[in-house]
This record gives sequence, C-alpha cells and structure tokens, in this order.
Amino acid sequence: MSSTPSTTPTGPAQPRPDGPLRVVVAPDSFKGSLSAADVAHAVAAGIRSVVPDAEVVELPMADGGEGTLEALLAVWGVPAREVATVDAIGRPRTARYGVSADGRLGVVELAEASGLPQVSDVALQPLHAHTLGTGAAAAAVLDAGVEEVIVCLGGSASTDGGSGILTGLGARLLDATGAQVPDGGEGLARVARLDLSGLHPRARDVRWRLAVDVTNPLHGERGAAHVFGPQKGAQEADVAFLDDALRRWAGVLAEEAGFDVSELAGAGAAGGVPAAMVGVLGAELEPGARLVAEAVGLPDAIRRADLVVTGEGSFDSQSVNGKVADAMGALAAEAPHRPPVVVLAGRVLLPAHQARDAGIAAAFSIAPGPIELDELLDRTASRLTDLAATVTSLHVASRR
Amino acid sequence: MSSTPSTTPTGPAQPRPDGPLRVVVAPDSFKGSLSAADVAHAVAAGIRSVVPDAEVVELPMADGGEGTLEALLAVWGVPAREVATVDAIGRPRTARYGVSADGRLGVVELAEASGLPQVSDVALQPLHAHTLGTGAAAAAVLDAGVEEVIVCLGGSASTDGGSGILTGLGARLLDATGAQVPDGGEGLARVARLDLSGLHPRARDVRWRLAVDVTNPLHGERGAAHVFGPQKGAQEADVAFLDDALRRWAGVLAEEAGFDVSELAGAGAAGGVPAAMVGVLGAELEPGARLVAEAVGLPDAIRRADLVVTGEGSFDSQSVNGKVADAMGALAAEAPHRPPVVVLAGRVLLPAHQARDAGIAAAFSIAPGPIELDELLDRTASRLTDLAATVTSLHVASRR
Repeated sequence: MSSTPSTTPTGPAQPRPDGPLRVVVAPDSFKGSLSAADVAHAVAAGIRSVVPDAEVVELPMADGGEGTLEALLAVWGVPAREVATVDAIGRPRTARYGVSADGRLGVVELAEASGLPQVSDVALQPLHAHTLGTGAAAAAVLDAGVEEVIVCLGGSASTDGGSGILTGLGARLLDATGAQVPDGGEGLARVARLDLSGLHPRARDVRWRLAVDVTNPLHGERGAAHVFGPQKGAQEADVAFLDDALRRWAGVLAEEAGFDVSELAGAGAAGGVPAAMVGVLGAELEPGARLVAEAVGLPDAIRRADLVVTGEGSFDSQSVNGKVADAMGALAAEAPHRPPVVVLAGRVLLPAHQARDAGIAAAFSIAPGPIELDELLDRTASRLTDLAATVTSLHVASRR
Repeated sequence: MSSTPSTTPTGPAQPRPDGPLRVVVAPDSFKGSLSAADVAHAVAAGIRSVVPDAEVVELPMADGGEGTLEALLAVWGVPAREVATVDAIGRPRTARYGVSADGRLGVVELAEASGLPQVSDVALQPLHAHTLGTGAAAAAVLDAGVEEVIVCLGGSASTDGGSGILTGLGARLLDATGAQVPDGGEGLARVARLDLSGLHPRARDVRWRLAVDVTNPLHGERGAAHVFGPQKGAQEADVAFLDDALRRWAGVLAEEAGFDVSELAGAGAAGGVPAAMVGVLGAELEPGARLVAEAVGLPDAIRRADLVVTGEGSFDSQSVNGKVADAMGALAAEAPHRPPVVVLAGRVLLPAHQARDAGIAAAFSIAPGPIELDELLDRTASRLTDLAATVTSLHVASRR
C-alpha cells in the first residue's frame, strides 16, 4: 500500500483501495442491435450514474470476426481508411482498413474486400473466388508504415489458400511452364513455383497476427475445402478438386518458403489464408478475442481495474470458448488482484457455475422480465445503462 | 474485532470478516408461482452452490396480507392450528391460525374466516357481512396462552368497524333498549352501548399488532365505507348508510372505551377493524412487512448478515412503499455495517436509482432473456437458484 511509485509489474498497476472506482468496460457488439462502442457507452453511463467520479475506460471489443475493424477504430479514435481494390471475383470494390493513431498497428478485415456477402448477388464461384483484394488492402497497410498488422479472417468467399493475398502483395504463382496461374483455387491446381521477387518490400518486415478461432488444417477431411467449401458454393466434385489444389499448394509453399503448413492447426481458416501467410510471411495465428484485447490494451487496463464489465447479445457456451467474454475472464484471472468480470447480455443461456469456470463472476440478462425479443432490442441501450447501474451498485455495496 | 463476547448491541452481531459468508434470505412469495418458503429455498440452494459453507438463514416473508400466516408458520416451523368458526355471513367455516413454537406469538389472518372470496358464491351482503368468525379465531389464540397476536387484515368482506371481532371475543353491542344488535354494519347503525363484561379475560392482557398499510380513516370520504365498500358490494345508498353507522360506532367506542378513533389514520382498513381493536383492546397499527420482519427475527438476522437477498413477483414502485423489499432496505440501512440488499424478481420495473433510494443495492429479474410469462413461471425456481448463485458470486468476488 505504498504511495511511492514502484517498478514491480504489479505495483502501480493495481487499483488503489482509497482511489476512485476503476471500471473497464469492454463489450462485444450486440448483433442486430448495438455496436460494441454503443454498448460500452451505454454501460459507462450506468456506472457513472452510481459513482460519478468513477474512472471508466471504454474499450469496445470484438472476437476477431465481423465488427473487429470497427471496434479497433473506435478504441484508436481514428476514422477508417479506404483502398480501391477488387472483390472476391475481381469486381471493383472499396475496402476499409485501419491504422492506429500512433501509426504502429494496422488492421485488415478479409471480409471488407473478399467477403462472401459481396459476391452473393451472382452465382457462387467456389473455384474462382480469391483473396487478391485483401492483398491490395494489406499492401496499403504496409505503405502506411505500420509495424504490426492484425488480419481478421471471418466471412471469406474463397478457397485459395491465401494465394490471392500473396499476389496482391506482389508475389506471382507460376505453373510448370513459368506462366502465371489464374487467381483462386483453380489456379492452385496448376501451381508449380512461387516467385517472391516482386513481394512488397515491407511484407516480411512486419509482424502479421491472424485472428483464428478454428483448428482445421489446410487440407484433408477436416480441411478448408471439405469443411468450409460447401458454404461457399462448392459441390462434391469441387470440394475434391479444391482439396487436391490445397495439398499441392502446401507442397509448393514448403519447397519455396521452407515451411510445411500441412499439419498446422488453423491453417484451414478462411479458405486456407493462414497457409500462405504463415508459410511465406511468418504470420502468427492467435485466438481472435485475445488478439483484439491485446491490440486495445486490455491486459494493462484490467490490471488497473476494480471491476470489468463485458457484454454480448447472447451469453452461451460459445461465449466461453474463445469469444470476448472468455478472453475477459482469462485476462482478469491473470491480473494479480483478480477483478470480478461481469457479463451483461441480451440472453444468458450459460448456467452460473459454467460462467464461473470461465472466470466470469456473474452474467445478467438485460431482460427486465417476460418480454418479446423486438421490444428488448428496442430497449437495449437503456436496459444496459440501468443494469450497469445495478451491477455497479452491488459491487460498491459489497466492497464496503 | 474482539473474539470475546460483548454485550454492546452491535458487537457480536456484526459479521466476522474472516468467518463464513452469512446471508439472510427473506423473500416475499412469487404470486401465482412459488410460496415465500419455496422462493427462499431455491435462493438458498443457489447461494450454497457458490459458497458451500455459507450460513444461510431462510426467513420467508410476507407483507401482512395474503400469505403472512403461511410465511410465519414456515419460519416458526409449526403446523397451522384450526378453529371451527363462521364465515363473513355466518356459515360454518374452519379457520387456520398460528402459534409460535415458544408459545409467545400468535397470528390470525382475517381472510381465513372473514374473507371476501369465501362468501363470493352468493350475492354480496355488504350490510350484513361481519368479522365474528375472526373474533372466534382470536379467542382461540388467546386460549393458547400467547402474549402477542399479529392480526393480518387483507381481503375482508365486511364493513363492521371490527365489531364482529369484539363480539367473537365476548363483548355485546346493545341498542338504546338494551337489546343486542345484529352482526355487521347494519347493527352498528343502531348501536348505543358496548357491554364488555363478557370480554375474553385475556383480551386486554396481550399485545395486539395489526398489519395495516393504508392510511384511510374510519369514516368520511376517505373512510372504510366510501373507499372500500363498493368492492364488497355496497351500492351508493349502502355506502352512505355504512358511513353513518361507522361514525356512530366511533362515538360509542369513544364513550365506552375513552378513545376517539375518528381521526386515526389506518382505522378504515378492513372495514374498520382497527377502530374496535385500537379503541377497546389498545391494538397497535404497524406497516405489515415491518411487523412480519420483526416477528420472524429479521432485524437481528440482518445485523449479522454480509448479504441480504429478498424477492417478489414484481419489483415496482409499490415494492418500495411498505412492501417486503422496502422493509429489507430500511432494516439493512439501520444495521451498522449496512449489508447490501439484493432483490430477485420476476419483473423489475423500478429504475436502479429508485431502488437505491429505498436502500436496495440491486434488483435483478430472473428472466434469462426474451421469454414468455408462462415459460418463466414454469422455470421460476431453477432461475432463482441460478440467479442467486450469480449474485453470490459477484458479491464474493467484489469483497476480495
């Protein structure tokens, strides 16, 4: 309880018993209702209504999938940047990306350029679809001078083993005759060599961090083609074709880059994007929520917090399996003073003891009683504010 | 923090910081779903699931109305006693009453013998209906040797100024000729004298405590006849007749017993029962929830508690206006260490800041999300257990 500054890691970071209440508010979005930033704002208002001088840190979160770019932009306090690129079937498209205020961190969402929804207006092209557009966005981030790039992989339309990203960064995939193969999985079936001579000069200088929450390998029965191909339009024959192509691609990558991604858990995410990015760029695969948490400075914030409030639309068994609430529980458990983590959710489907097992002290629904979904959606923000006030009040009364 | 016994009121009673968690569970019933005892049981199970060695004191509560007899029997751990008596229109009826295990306290519910529902099978008889049957139950309690009698007044069928209770206890209402007047409001219109010579010998030796939550006077525009008469079947002319009768009764009581109840707030409850019981028996009027709380030993239990959990079907503006939750908030505020009071409810309709104003730290709904009333009613017990576990978990985590 010394008041002099200390250099031990837990000294100055722990909450001061006599200081103002410090609360970290780090919710996911409530899908179909409020963005993570809006949720954080509503919760913070409730906390301040009970403890006006509370130090409330709003850190909108995401799990590395949809909404991650938006959450990071909100925390960094910067607008989205844009790059003219192409969609998953080569049509012109503008993609957003982000660069932190200090210029150190970049974020690219694969779904911005190469997402499935953007190409669902025409018949799906599972063999042709590619990630070239995301490669162009990645090049734009590199041009901005960042040191680290977070790549969010959800919602992909393609099964190209990440070859499009490499192409977008200046690499060339060649067949046995030295001719460039077409984009997409169909090209992989003929690839024999990878020419990296034109690769973006900074592509191997930055730290690539991929948000990956699946453990599927690149190819095989649990691979990208078999498991995720059908939802991208692949028929049975396409799946077999794409699986063979990915296996071939792994061989080329091993030969050219010296690293065999065949056994890498998670390499099958987003049609195999990690295969190329790990093999060629040395990317790291990380659980999405944890990755985002670190990017917004949550570990530090939680070490200083008396109370951690998170939230999401539905708190269920998925939530404690790599999602935002799970990351909050784990981070709080790592903090020396273990601040309680409270989940505020539209629905709470997980029993209390399972929440506790994941490091969540308490999960409460914003439902004030029997209510229809539509009405609750309309009242999400005001209910969050009131419930946050209630939780804060109980926390403060229990501390006495 | 001395470990030796102390005689100061707050010394040994406060919770020990190093001892087991002490929780008082004192809910009202969830009307149409669970009795107060069932609610307490479900909540206690949730608390123990988190802190197995917690000292959980289950004190089912009631607000002095329906369910009070049952709650007191549950806390006292005794079965109901029965007395053969009559209903509000003189038909044979068995009424239940209670006597505490130590024989010191008795409880009588007016609705047991003289309730409106029991006489709703025939046309209502607002001038004839009376409280004679409750008088017989009161006599039975006196015969049991108690020192104190709690009388719960809800649900009355009559407007007899409590004259029936006096008659049941042996008094006689006489007209100007010395003849006994009939039971009910119609008799009061002719009453001239009160003969107390046959009054039960113990009727004036015990402490009568009436659970009263209204402030209506005996007669006048806000009196028993005008405000409550119509719901008991009184037409406009009946109301005027009964109001005159109650005014006459007040005069007789003042003359015979020396105490004018005309201006007494609350004397108009239950058709004027307090008028007779205050005027003749020296009864005390008390807010019902507070009265029950004292009868079950809540003030002491709360002084020893780390956490107080209460509950009710609907937590709304009524709840903090003399109901169970209100009494809990007030009692906790009087305890030196002010333990947090948490309400678990089917519906939470009161904003957080209004709950705090009433001394309630937090109120949570058992609804796990959007849900239909019927389904929530089916799941009340299991939801209470899970929510109690959640609240306990947050309380314990916040204390660290």
